Amino acid sequence: MNRRNPQLNRHGELIHLLSTEGLPRDILLHILDTAQQFVSVNDREVKKVPLLRGKSVFNLFFENSTRTRTTFEIAATRLSADVFNLDIARSSTAKGETLLDTIANLSAMAADIFVVRHSESGAPYLIAQHVAPHVHVINAGDGRHAHPTQGLLDMYTIRHYKGDFRNLSVAIVGDVLHSRVARSDIHALTTLGCPDVRVVGPRTLVPSDLAQLGVRVCHSLQEGIRDCDVVIALRLQNERMSGALLPSSQEFHQSFGLTPQRLRWAKPDAIVMHPGPVNRGVEIDSSVVDGAQSVVLPQVTFGIAVRMAVMGIIAGNEA
Amino acid sequence: MNRRNPQLNRHGELIHLLSTEGLPRDILLHILDTAQQFVSVNDREVKKVPLLRGKSVFNLFFENSTRTRTTFEIAATRLSADVFNLDIARSSTAKGETLLDTIANLSAMAADIFVVRHSESGAPYLIAQHVAPHVHVINAGDGRHAHPTQGLLDMYTIRHYKGDFRNLSVAIVGDVLHSRVARSDIHALTTLGCPDVRVVGPRTLVPSDLAQLGVRVCHSLQEGIRDCDVVIALRLQNERMSGALLPSSQEFHQSFGLTPQRLRWAKPDAIVMHPGPVNRGVEIDSSVVDGAQSVVLPQVTFGIAVRMAVMGIIAGNEA
Amino acid sequence: MNRRNPQLNRHGELIHLLSTEGLPRDILLHILDTAQQFVSVNDREVKKVPLLRGKSVFNLFFENSTRTRTTFEIAATRLSADVFNLDIARSSTAKGETLLDTIANLSAMAADIFVVRHSESGAPYLIAQHVAPHVHVINAGDGRHAHPTQGLLDMYTIRHYKGDFRNLSVAIVGDVLHSRVARSDIHALTTLGCPDVRVVGPRTLVPSDLAQLGVRVCHSLQEGIRDCDVVIALRLQNERMSGALLPSSQEFHQSFGLTPQRLRWAKPDAIVMHPGPVNRGVEIDSSVVDGAQSVVLPQVTFGIAVRMAVMGIIAGNEA
Repeated sequence: MNRRNPQLNRHGELIHLLSTEGLPRDILLHILDTAQQFVSVNDREVKKVPLLRGKSVFNLFFENSTRTRTTFEIAATRLSADVFNLDIARSSTAKGETLLDTIANLSAMAADIFVVRHSESGAPYLIAQHVAPHVHVINAGDGRHAHPTQGLLDMYTIRHYKGDFRNLSVAIVGDVLHSRVARSDIHALTTLGCPDVRVVGPRTLVPSDLAQLGVRVCHSLQEGIRDCDVVIALRLQNERMSGALLPSSQEFHQSFGLTPQRLRWAKPDAIVMHPGPVNRGVEIDSSVVDGAQSVVLPQVTFGIAVRMAVMGIIAGNEA
Repeated sequence: MNRRNPQLNRHGELIHLLSTEGLPRDILLHILDTAQQFVSVNDREVKKVPLLRGKSVFNLFFENSTRTRTTFEIAATRLSADVFNLDIARSSTAKGETLLDTIANLSAMAADIFVVRHSESGAPYLIAQHVAPHVHVINAGDGRHAHPTQGLLDMYTIRHYKGDFRNLSVAIVGDVLHSRVARSDIHALTTLGCPDVRVVGPRTLVPSDLAQLGVRVCHSLQEGIRDCDVVIALRLQNERMSGALLPSSQEFHQSFGLTPQRLRWAKPDAIVMHPGPVNRGVEIDSSVVDGAQSVVLPQVTFGIAVRMAVMGIIAGNEA
Repeated sequence: MNRRNPQLNRHGELIHLLSTEGLPRDILLHILDTAQQFVSVNDREVKKVPLLRGKSVFNLFFENSTRTRTTFEIAATRLSADVFNLDIARSSTAKGETLLDTIANLSAMAADIFVVRHSESGAPYLIAQHVAPHVHVINAGDGRHAHPTQGLLDMYTIRHYKGDFRNLSVAIVGDVLHSRVARSDIHALTTLGCPDVRVVGPRTLVPSDLAQLGVRVCHSLQEGIRDCDVVIALRLQNERMSGALLPSSQEFHQSFGLTPQRLRWAKPDAIVMHPGPVNRGVEIDSSVVDGAQSVVLPQVTFGIAVRMAVMGIIAGNEA
């Protein structure tokens, strides 16, 4: 492992995917280019390839997420890997085993890739620091910190529809404070040279100090999405939020919900993205989700291809 | 999708299996003939074939049923498909996502077949109406409505032991009111030309208006199974029943439980079927389940072959 | 099935693995030799072989154990079998189906191997007596009775590091009373000719009548591990224990916890084993688990190979 960047080996090659922060531009682009090979012409059919034949991918979901787990399972299966789903929440952890002992044991079962979802920020880093050298770690979401494959599939989607990042205005709208997706998008957009990234929402969900991430903070939707090329609506994560100062779903929708009328503030050909699952009528109206500018479902399709690319690339690099 | 029959495409080919109701006779027979190829001589070994290699089958069980899910998983695996089991009850549905959004998302993951179990009657129809054109839907049981693969495996079993349907008397005994199996059997038997189908049980479980399905309603076991060729005992589904008028397990057994003595009212070579799991000593005696006339276990074996046939056929037809 | 030994067929070949008790010496050694073929030079890479291609392995875990289930799933997958995981606790059993009906139904789905974990001692025996002749049963742990694949992987590990059993002193330390691992180890060690097996712990966990198993009972750790070649620390299974006379974790550690200081009572080249998951600081100190004498992680690696060997061997023998 590279001391300066735990995601890279001494040759600067990707061996773990922990965050889009610190991910070099050429590696990021290499992932997007590789993913493109796994998306067929009709945006539906994903080719099955023998790239990971005989390799073992372990889905370690310390926090339940059927959808994300399934996308990784599909991606690994289409690379011909053997996939093992571990219901970690119900298993050894409950018997008082430490995280690192669980990881060491699973490494000893000849694992090649750990896909890790954890409610604590940093857990995948800790795991990457302690796994045997033959194991690669992919962060599938850790606390509020990062969700790099979602960030990468968002980049793939933007590039697919907009071509280049250098003249784009991108607005991320909603519960930025609690969103690992927003963080992963922001780091990737910055690396890819996107000159205008805005985070948009009420002060309680979009505090001013987010500006230090190199983005513009907007507390007005109209100002925030004005003339934007890309609007990324975030899920209002009621289940992660607490506190009397936070807006209710209704209050949020009144000021920041994406309606067809408000979407006109953005460019006419702006695309609308959402990481899912969507709260219809809260952060986004049904007619926008299902509308002509929505690319929510292509995001899902591209997500499989991007995860295939990430697994294919890291499995080929040695610690 | 065919407007008159959502199970068929414009060429009259099967693209979804939602119910045995409205399933044309030639398609029904084609399924049974195809299934026969997947059952080997010794009734045990099921051949593995590459018919669905590279295809993705999603088991979407909104209602838990390990046994039925496993039979579909086995069938799909033996067709060389990749199978993904989604624990829907614990997943996105819990996060407030709508059924159709869940379905749209899974379609976007390049699914080929959805196997759907749902507690609400009609859910698989709704899904079939909204899936992307490349996705086929198989109903694995919806509410009290239908369980078509169970109906088809029952037909396979009857044909295997009795050859033809045109001279048969078939009695369906027990909790017909709550049984999707009974409904699927009745429609299939009618289509296949079975001239004498009887539903047998107490008035609370076998109301007289079932006669409109084209069957004879009997409230006496002796009358109901007299000279029958086939006796299908239904599971007394205590978990689905409620109400003071319904019989207790003991009361039911006293009047309608299938004992060796009562089975003599049927033809000497009558076969006894049951969809499982069996409540021994309630709807059927242990000595009957394990007796020479019981074909309960062959039903299970044939069920794999029939599900292979259904998946193989629909995956070959385009919407 | 052989009347004298339900694990063997009439030719004395292994058809079920239920216990290391009664397992003939030549079969035991054959398993270890076969396993050796599945462990590569670097102790990590396990070869994938087509030995069980087209066969179906059913994981029937009536008691939850993600780790053990996963090791069997990995082993079967590396033999190219199709693996089906049945969440038995939530399934038909809950619907009142009997164990033997569940088993009969699963047999009818053309199963080849049942891997059974059950909280009741003897359940795998009962199942082996009633399965169809084409089904092989592997006990993955039944109550306090036996955990034969753990016993076999322990033997593999000892042979790997110590070469031969005939001059060895082996101490099993801890909660021997509740441990199926200890029983399986003792029977295997005896069969393999190990002349000095000791069980070590407080009287409440290591009652004197264990001597009838042919082992030496020691209530002092110093006496118990003195000049030993192998120290097997058992997990203090608080979840299985109850009763006011049993020691607390702290009390146990004070008298029998394996510390670096106490480990010096054993031979300088003694190896330390543990079936996992480890309670660090209870039955064993962290510095011992992670120390130079610990072979805890190689045990896990060897466990995959041993399970591959067992499945490969029994699937090749006919009832």
